[in-house]
Amino acid sequence: MELLSNSKAFGGSQRVFRHESAACSCPMSFAIFLPPQIEDGPVPVLWYLSGLTCTHQNVVDKGEYRAAAAANGIAIVCPDTSPRGEGIPDEPDNWQFGSGAGFYLDATQEPYARNYRMESYILDELTEIVAHNFPVDMTRQGIFGHSMGGHGAITLALKNPERFRSVSAFAPITQPSTAGWSRPAFEKYLGPDEATWRSHDSTALIEDGHRLKELLVDQGTADSFLEEGLRPWLLQAACEKAGIPIELTMREGYDHSYNFVSTFMAQHVSWHAQRLRG
Amino acid sequence: MELLSNSKAFGGSQRVFRHESAACSCPMSFAIFLPPQIEDGPVPVLWYLSGLTCTHQNVVDKGEYRAAAAANGIAIVCPDTSPRGEGIPDEPDNWQFGSGAGFYLDATQEPYARNYRMESYILDELTEIVAHNFPVDMTRQGIFGHSMGGHGAITLALKNPERFRSVSAFAPITQPSTAGWSRPAFEKYLGPDEATWRSHDSTALIEDGHRLKELLVDQGTADSFLEEGLRPWLLQAACEKAGIPIELTMREGYDHSYNFVSTFMAQHVSWHAQRLRG
Repeated sequence: MELLSNSKAFGGSQRVFRHESAACSCPMSFAIFLPPQIEDGPVPVLWYLSGLTCTHQNVVDKGEYRAAAAANGIAIVCPDTSPRGEGIPDEPDNWQFGSGAGFYLDATQEPYARNYRMESYILDELTEIVAHNFPVDMTRQGIFGHSMGGHGAITLALKNPERFRSVSAFAPITQPSTAGWSRPAFEKYLGPDEATWRSHDSTALIEDGHRLKELLVDQGTADSFLEEGLRPWLLQAACEKAGIPIELTMREGYDHSYNFVSTFMAQHVSWHAQRLRG
Repeated sequence: MELLSNSKAFGGSQRVFRHESAACSCPMSFAIFLPPQIEDGPVPVLWYLSGLTCTHQNVVDKGEYRAAAAANGIAIVCPDTSPRGEGIPDEPDNWQFGSGAGFYLDATQEPYARNYRMESYILDELTEIVAHNFPVDMTRQGIFGHSMGGHGAITLALKNPERFRSVSAFAPITQPSTAGWSRPAFEKYLGPDEATWRSHDSTALIEDGHRLKELLVDQGTADSFLEEGLRPWLLQAACEKAGIPIELTMREGYDHSYNFVSTFMAQHVSWHAQRLRG
């Protein structure tokens, strides 16, 4: 594992690493913020999954999470959103598929199945790396994300409710199996049998019996992807039908950018911190 | 004036504009954050000047100033650091001169004198634009900045003490007339007569009788530019000799990046806010 950068911030340290990934068969980078409380013992881990076109760096630069992570004594891990680089199959002109658009699933179709394995990468490989290299308490993990990363956070948590004590999302893609900007990617990664798509779709997972203890979601009303791509009301309806408490707040005038995410970041980090204590 | 972007953040709005600059004879861009309190009447203005290689966008992305600006009801204006674009004389491979390195002075030497006029641009032209286009109270202005922008904030304030009620800096260049990374730029912009450099050098301005009511400075101890380029002890000595109260804090382990700036941003904004009230 190679340390690409290490910089003190808010009393803790913001680091970026690169490592050879067995899951994705390519080098992968991730960021981790370690709060000052690591001096006193292992700290909880909060996973932040990023949206389409992003790497870990977007939230590192624009997410404004370090103040709240330091105040609450939480490590925040920010993975990349896909494999990338030479030799990785990609559609360079398509921002909704391939590099920057891994959708947090394991592809089953060629030529993508060898590299596009973000679900295994995050849940297994990167988890091992984080557990073995940093002073973190893996019995206290939460997960959140933005847009495609909100989709990732909710689907991974629905499939691993014992692992993630807390789940939240900013402007998540709630039903990718029916949204125009994700259906083509799902077909290329998973094939034409839409039954296989259901285990990578929040609302379908809930319909199929998966459960969360609770869910926090914020969504901007001026988000240009709201009506076609995000549709939080679908998630809200699924949660209400299944008896999952969901706190969905529509934020008047906010768009899809990190100006929205950063505005509500401290609230989300504190919400997770309450649930990851002790 | 063309609105390039407008995005709600922390209850206010983060905007970026472009306009034809008469001072710099080229199009210039700047960012402004308007806090939610503009609904209730004019708000104070805090100018943030950026460092070498930056545009307004670096602090917009990484500065984490919006939370504190919104909490304190202050507008923050972030100018670019130089003229730039086609037809602007530049040394593309030199990050310490030309584009991104205007040093907040008016050049007197050819071929730079026509465009490199950042002092006039900020103090006159952009001031007029801000005063006429936004609900701000120009009787309550403060100024701060990072690195070259710290130099800019302190020198402009020393020359305009009646205008800027409050002045602070993150890791400022304190004596550019004697530092290796700024002397070549000063010679190209101002010519070989070093007497003319003194009005663009914080310590020389203080020696020559200019005064501030007080000064807040933070500096990281792990800053790679500390010993050669920044040297806050020169500013501290000049202030102490002149009877200017300076609060210089050396921050253990912090580097020169926005991880340092963002960590102490809220403290600086609140410090200015106290001095810009009423």
